[in-house]
Amino acid sequence: MVAGMAPPPLITLLTDFGEEATWVAQMKGTILGIAPEARIVDLTHAVPPHDVVAGAYLLETAVDAFPRGTIHVAVVDPGVGTSRRAVVVRTETLVLVGPDNGLFSRVLDRHPPRSAWVLEAPHYRASSSSATFDGRDVFAPAAAWLARGTDPSRFGPVIADLAGLSRTHVPPGSPAPFETRVLFVDRFGNAALDLPVEHLAAWLVPETGLLGLRAALASGTVVSEVRRTFADGPPGMPFLLVNSAGYVEIAMREESAARRLGLAPGQEVGITPGG
Amino acid sequence: MVAGMAPPPLITLLTDFGEEATWVAQMKGTILGIAPEARIVDLTHAVPPHDVVAGAYLLETAVDAFPRGTIHVAVVDPGVGTSRRAVVVRTETLVLVGPDNGLFSRVLDRHPPRSAWVLEAPHYRASSSSATFDGRDVFAPAAAWLARGTDPSRFGPVIADLAGLSRTHVPPGSPAPFETRVLFVDRFGNAALDLPVEHLAAWLVPETGLLGLRAALASGTVVSEVRRTFADGPPGMPFLLVNSAGYVEIAMREESAARRLGLAPGQEVGITPGG
Amino acid sequence: MVAGMAPPPLITLLTDFGEEATWVAQMKGTILGIAPEARIVDLTHAVPPHDVVAGAYLLETAVDAFPRGTIHVAVVDPGVGTSRRAVVVRTETLVLVGPDNGLFSRVLDRHPPRSAWVLEAPHYRASSSSATFDGRDVFAPAAAWLARGTDPSRFGPVIADLAGLSRTHVPPGSPAPFETRVLFVDRFGNAALDLPVEHLAAWLVPETGLLGLRAALASGTVVSEVRRTFADGPPGMPFLLVNSAGYVEIAMREESAARRLGLAPGQEVGITPGG
Repeated sequence: MVAGMAPPPLITLLTDFGEEATWVAQMKGTILGIAPEARIVDLTHAVPPHDVVAGAYLLETAVDAFPRGTIHVAVVDPGVGTSRRAVVVRTETLVLVGPDNGLFSRVLDRHPPRSAWVLEAPHYRASSSSATFDGRDVFAPAAAWLARGTDPSRFGPVIADLAGLSRTHVPPGSPAPFETRVLFVDRFGNAALDLPVEHLAAWLVPETGLLGLRAALASGTVVSEVRRTFADGPPGMPFLLVNSAGYVEIAMREESAARRLGLAPGQEVGITPGG
Repeated sequence: MVAGMAPPPLITLLTDFGEEATWVAQMKGTILGIAPEARIVDLTHAVPPHDVVAGAYLLETAVDAFPRGTIHVAVVDPGVGTSRRAVVVRTETLVLVGPDNGLFSRVLDRHPPRSAWVLEAPHYRASSSSATFDGRDVFAPAAAWLARGTDPSRFGPVIADLAGLSRTHVPPGSPAPFETRVLFVDRFGNAALDLPVEHLAAWLVPETGLLGLRAALASGTVVSEVRRTFADGPPGMPFLLVNSAGYVEIAMREESAARRLGLAPGQEVGITPGG
Repeated sequence: MVAGMAPPPLITLLTDFGEEATWVAQMKGTILGIAPEARIVDLTHAVPPHDVVAGAYLLETAVDAFPRGTIHVAVVDPGVGTSRRAVVVRTETLVLVGPDNGLFSRVLDRHPPRSAWVLEAPHYRASSSSATFDGRDVFAPAAAWLARGTDPSRFGPVIADLAGLSRTHVPPGSPAPFETRVLFVDRFGNAALDLPVEHLAAWLVPETGLLGLRAALASGTVVSEVRRTFADGPPGMPFLLVNSAGYVEIAMREESAARRLGLAPGQEVGITPGG
């Protein structure tokens, strides 16, 4: 980079494509053919196949680590080839490109949309497109044109009604039990729940600075220990902690809580405040 | 990038190395030590171990998404350390670097070779080379020197007899049944067959724009439904579609066809036109 | 890159984070927010969870492929959030950033440390840090500031007593049997032993140029064949060879030695010289 110049545009990619086939690479080749100066970073390509809920969570965990102006392309898209819309969404600090199926909803809860456009103009799509690969043929070119400075209004009409996804409603201030669910199980077997700590401020225990809550699993196990770090965890016992994305998760110390407790994405978990 | 300058060279990597060890990283470090300005993109490193047939298919699926002049390094190389040749092949639009074992044959069927050279000159190899890692010691340096503009004739003598791989022969125009095989099973469980749609032009059904054919699996199952997109698929039933690389594949909607039907790379599949 | 300018700084990442979640991406976003010109290369993120011994080996296998001055960030860190120190270590040719838990010990055996500093100054950490993610909040920012030229003495005090890890002691020159262990099993099922060939110079057999040694496995199997390449291997039989990192490993030709012989990291293996 030459001193004094703005850094080249930054594009991230999140998909459920895995890394076995070359789909992600085809998206990158397409981007670099249009915007050779773009820098590309993989967020993850291991979103469970078709799992828009997990994709929305994983996208949310990542975006705040990136500099202002980053363009995030996300493709978890069971409806590819149907009439679901392809969109570009702009917030104050970032840009999102992908299918309008709720995948962006968690990011947009924290970063309200300023404007959104439908990706329609054939001029900004791959000339020889396939019916099954909008990641390469629609979303990658759009991101690359955005990186080159194309105004998104050239892609298609403005829209206002972006798709959402249901999420856990935390009863504000109330001590009543409620249901949440497992969003994602990571490599270490930690199971993130649909419980952002910012919704739980009323339950912070002043003496410890930790949350006061209990989680009842479908198996009958109740998790009531709360810790600040993994290394603080009681050996051999599950505990709760706030993960690095700000969500409550069920963990074990140097062991897989998911395997030990039979946890999987989508499972319901009963929460009791003040545990 | 400074306006008006040519974009820096682009090198891709495809291997069966996986991403557990640091072999791919060692190739990248070697490239960047010689050609610091090179941009490097991973095609995939999950080619099944030693599976040159799958590697040839995966390489073919990716190259057309990359800009003219891209240098593709591919290493699926059970013969490393033997007398099999290391080569550089140039076509009108791209450059290939790797072992001469058929890995390039599918790309070269679409992009005829203009010239090919053996990689022999010790000057363009790593000084402290291992007997088992030509990816780092031979192919990565060659790609980096090419990226710096080294003429490939400096690597070694020209050759004309590049290795090939057998592929399905589609009887032209004839309605007789024939055998093909599974090339690759992707993350979603779709099984790509050795049937490029461009060889099947005679079988397009004018009313639907879809192919007319049936696939008989070893298990006895016959797949006769044909669809344009995954979302069009009949729930719970396998169907055929043309994938984004232009090959016919056996798929199921939001389910793994490979798992349900017991499909694996190398399996024979009987094809009957006009199904 | 503009001709005549030094290449932009190079940062590598090695972790046990896997690539399912977005942790690695968050480290990259953090780095690029501070040092937009940095080039980032993944070494591997598939170190077995919490396995500092395998991480130390994998880091050692990779660093020598990178150009002088590369900054290597490594995070295998079961003690995150505890009082274990975060450090920067400088050798003559490279820089290391990560937890002080022995992860750097194998690299430092070959590249003696010149200076080391504790990462303490809050100014060079992420402002909103989590208790569980020093990769993003401490190590990535430190690497990015180093890439920008920040002097490591600004991070915190010098230290001299870096943590080590036990490794196999090869009795010099003696023909007595001794114990070593499996360090890492790769994708092909090759099992690397804690035996760098440079410690075995006394056992080279002049006629063949190969090592003379036998490996006795816990299962009772004795491996006594030694080969130079995988393709030289006797079909269906395990053999020993020196891998591309300079370590003795147990391999089979186009087959998984680990699966066939039940090998796993940490297992003891008896070595008899002159086999």
